[in-house]
Amino acid sequence: MKSDIEIAQEAKLLPIKQIAEGIGLTEDDIEPYGKYKAKISLDVYRRMQAQNKPDGKLILVTAISPTPAGEGKSTTTVGLGQALGRKLQGTGKTSMIALREPSLGPSFGMKGGAAGGGYSQVVPMEDINLHFTGDFHAITAAHNLLAALIDNHIHQGNPQRFDVRRIAWNRVLDVNDRALRQVVVGLGGVANGIPRESGFDITVASEVMAVLCLAADEADLKNRLRKIIVGYNVDKAPITVADLGAEGSMTVLLKDAIKPNLVQTLEHTPALVHGGPFANIAHGCNSVIATKMALKLADYVVTEAGFGADLGAEKFFHIKCRQAGLNPSAVVVVATVRALKMHGGVEKTDLATPNFEAVTRGLDNLSKHVENVQMFNMPVVVAVNKFPTDTPEEMAVISNWCAQYGIPVALSEVFTDGGAGGLELAEKVLDVVENRPGGLMFLYNLEDSIETKIDTIVREIYGGAGVQYAPKALTTLKKLQEMGLTHLPVCMAKTQYSFSDNPNLRGRPEGFTITIRELRISAGAGFVVAVTGEIMTMPGLPKQPAALSIDLLEDGKITGLF
Amino acid sequence: MKSDIEIAQEAKLLPIKQIAEGIGLTEDDIEPYGKYKAKISLDVYRRMQAQNKPDGKLILVTAISPTPAGEGKSTTTVGLGQALGRKLQGTGKTSMIALREPSLGPSFGMKGGAAGGGYSQVVPMEDINLHFTGDFHAITAAHNLLAALIDNHIHQGNPQRFDVRRIAWNRVLDVNDRALRQVVVGLGGVANGIPRESGFDITVASEVMAVLCLAADEADLKNRLRKIIVGYNVDKAPITVADLGAEGSMTVLLKDAIKPNLVQTLEHTPALVHGGPFANIAHGCNSVIATKMALKLADYVVTEAGFGADLGAEKFFHIKCRQAGLNPSAVVVVATVRALKMHGGVEKTDLATPNFEAVTRGLDNLSKHVENVQMFNMPVVVAVNKFPTDTPEEMAVISNWCAQYGIPVALSEVFTDGGAGGLELAEKVLDVVENRPGGLMFLYNLEDSIETKIDTIVREIYGGAGVQYAPKALTTLKKLQEMGLTHLPVCMAKTQYSFSDNPNLRGRPEGFTITIRELRISAGAGFVVAVTGEIMTMPGLPKQPAALSIDLLEDGKITGLF
Repeated sequence: MKSDIEIAQEAKLLPIKQIAEGIGLTEDDIEPYGKYKAKISLDVYRRMQAQNKPDGKLILVTAISPTPAGEGKSTTTVGLGQALGRKLQGTGKTSMIALREPSLGPSFGMKGGAAGGGYSQVVPMEDINLHFTGDFHAITAAHNLLAALIDNHIHQGNPQRFDVRRIAWNRVLDVNDRALRQVVVGLGGVANGIPRESGFDITVASEVMAVLCLAADEADLKNRLRKIIVGYNVDKAPITVADLGAEGSMTVLLKDAIKPNLVQTLEHTPALVHGGPFANIAHGCNSVIATKMALKLADYVVTEAGFGADLGAEKFFHIKCRQAGLNPSAVVVVATVRALKMHGGVEKTDLATPNFEAVTRGLDNLSKHVENVQMFNMPVVVAVNKFPTDTPEEMAVISNWCAQYGIPVALSEVFTDGGAGGLELAEKVLDVVENRPGGLMFLYNLEDSIETKIDTIVREIYGGAGVQYAPKALTTLKKLQEMGLTHLPVCMAKTQYSFSDNPNLRGRPEGFTITIRELRISAGAGFVVAVTGEIMTMPGLPKQPAALSIDLLEDGKITGLF
Repeated sequence: MKSDIEIAQEAKLLPIKQIAEGIGLTEDDIEPYGKYKAKISLDVYRRMQAQNKPDGKLILVTAISPTPAGEGKSTTTVGLGQALGRKLQGTGKTSMIALREPSLGPSFGMKGGAAGGGYSQVVPMEDINLHFTGDFHAITAAHNLLAALIDNHIHQGNPQRFDVRRIAWNRVLDVNDRALRQVVVGLGGVANGIPRESGFDITVASEVMAVLCLAADEADLKNRLRKIIVGYNVDKAPITVADLGAEGSMTVLLKDAIKPNLVQTLEHTPALVHGGPFANIAHGCNSVIATKMALKLADYVVTEAGFGADLGAEKFFHIKCRQAGLNPSAVVVVATVRALKMHGGVEKTDLATPNFEAVTRGLDNLSKHVENVQMFNMPVVVAVNKFPTDTPEEMAVISNWCAQYGIPVALSEVFTDGGAGGLELAEKVLDVVENRPGGLMFLYNLEDSIETKIDTIVREIYGGAGVQYAPKALTTLKKLQEMGLTHLPVCMAKTQYSFSDNPNLRGRPEGFTITIRELRISAGAGFVVAVTGEIMTMPGLPKQPAALSIDLLEDGKITGLF
């Protein structure tokens, strides 16, 4: 089979204005970026809202606890969108996709693209994985302008009395650069500011990214930016963006980044690809604005949440859906034979060897994820994302289990066959959406204490026995009470490979406790991050970075990317 | 009079495809970025070249030694382009402008925009001064990917045996951030790489910027990137981008940034705004590609070089024109009563007070600049850029002097009147272009030694008595011989406020010597930078940064910017 980039480069794309027309948008409604990408102004959303245009149905794609290679959530999301498009042909109904934007930096390390795969990709794939429409660069600029304003504030006389040891705002760059993780800035004498310890994160880890992805509109964006806590003064009181007066400039820098990006899939299904917050220290899904706009533009919208359902779906429901008032109609849980095998005790190197028993043992991971989604009162469809090494016996393990518990299940071959490989899945999803309306329920209330929220997630979603707090976390708990921020939802930062905080505990572990090492306050985004392990917010490059084999050929084609 | 941003916001722009049509480009020839900006593929240039489309005439706008406020070169460039458009109406001939892109960072400090001013601006002004089409962000990304690859190379085992004390590649950001000038990176233990001293420059100071602006096409871009020297090994031999294998990825990141950006002036004159290298440590003019493309698209192209003619025009001729084979037809030297007054000994605070005698004394600065341009065998037109405080007597000083020496001169009121205020200037320029063809001559040969080149510029252009070299510069001179790089042209980094290296020596100083503090090798760009003073490559923010008054209003308008 051809590589992702070969497939993407051979694709015949439709002009973006034609894609826009297909969802009822005129040429005036879109701002083209080249021939195959466009931004859609929020005015278009406001107009549709004023016209009381009804919302479409929202379908979330999530997954079991993944293997390091990933289980194909993005590919399934794109493939399902394409399959729905095929199913709906001639009905007058439309489908659309809402996805995160990939980060540029990791493309030059070792990670592949994040625009789907095989015959289920969003295109133009190279553009989407490189600068795209500049959203992440705008976030980088807004973030770093704030950083410069903080150091300038201190340098120029410091009316806010910053404690330079308690500045909570790093700088960011969209590059894998371990040497920037910990730095000392302000060296070289009086003209260069105050020396202090600091660091750089990758752009997707910026709170500005999380803010942009949760903002309802430009005014809400500015209001959230105002609330960001950038550090503490010598009396340990928080200093916010509003205290510095930086929110206006930051909003100006983000005025285009806030507009969703319209592209298409390989089968011309319209897709909004917008925003890309980290799935650990942030909530890990595309922007609220893109999801809400897609729901106005199409009858069925397929979207995705990062990591496994214990993290991605939980945060999608408790953070994104609650804030934005979204009510999804169905949840697809992607499972693979490979991942179940791993949860059944097989080593990473043996995943290609048929192992019926291991797949069977691994079912307990799938079952817990399915139960979890059902706890939110959401109907589940299991999608088995097929890999070439899967045997019919192994695949039957999953479908038999689903049949036994009455859970709709479908084989998905969207990687090799595009939308045609997802027709069964689309059918099951449509059936669930139309006939088993859910009605989202939350597992905790915002009025609960932070400890209760964490305890609820750990016990009910993870299946753990309890929670321990490191001293640093206890200090922040106290601070959250003082600051009156206990009403915020919790954003768990935990390994995606296990329900526990130990990545090696596969399957459905029990009796474990989760240790909260620290709590970070993302007051602008509007959540409290509960950190349960080492969270890497600036990746490094491997010994042989992809950057060394990427090239621009004489015919203008890119090679070596993915 | 209204502010620049008010005028720009009230402007009725034409759709960019209509601007493109006016210069013979179809909708397929351009890649729109929103409704009023577009990129033009290099294929369009290659097609016109294959068709043997003749080149238009090139007009350079430069200036006398400026005051800190600037003498209105960009405004004159835009205004002259507009005036030529008016003059040429009905003749079937067209005019166009080629300008640098402004840097984003300084917009949030205290500098105004760099897109002209008053009724002679390129628009959409806010976009051009903010992210525009993302070119500078792409340069930032390519530059910093290389930096990450260098540190990763060292961290992973260092086959090139970098001497970490001799790394010649900073990181860059498009922000005014003094705290980043000098930093220590790689702190925090083994996982975070090797600790070492480093720093950040502003993006326009990146050698990648200079490379992009001098590249003939994508292949030349890659070839120039290969040659960039990033540091030295333990045997003091240079290590290049090619040694690391980073040129392919960097070229991929720059594949769109290399395409010129088409916008329009307030009077719908087409303008290519592309590239923006520093005018001190680089050559300070827009990209070669944009200039050459404009010459294929229009009959008259007005372009600009940074700083005064001693720096901007000299480098434009010796570096840009020589490399690109450009032969300008006329040079406009912008003079102002204010600046001449300053050269005549008046303090910065007294420039609004009429002072006939000071203007007269200041003429010696203008005369030297005019003589210099004539040394390149280029015909000169003097443009007197009118300010409200100028008196008729003061302005007559300049026109009388020009008349005496047979130099065409015109009053320019393009700031207040747009193209209508530049008709006399346009007439004089057209006359010179058609009737006094120049034929560019260089003052030094590339085969001359570096010392001879510097000596020639200092004695002939600056009017100095000689050159001194600091020990550090002498070491690099030796290194340049060893490396076989003495054939490169010299890029002078000197104060723009004086012909000498002392900014306080106004007028036409004599008898001074220039001290070369250090020589920097920009092997990719293809020049040797001769540094004659403190060169600031990362600005800082002022006590009251513009960032604190910039805002996005509820109607979507930007306020406080310029």
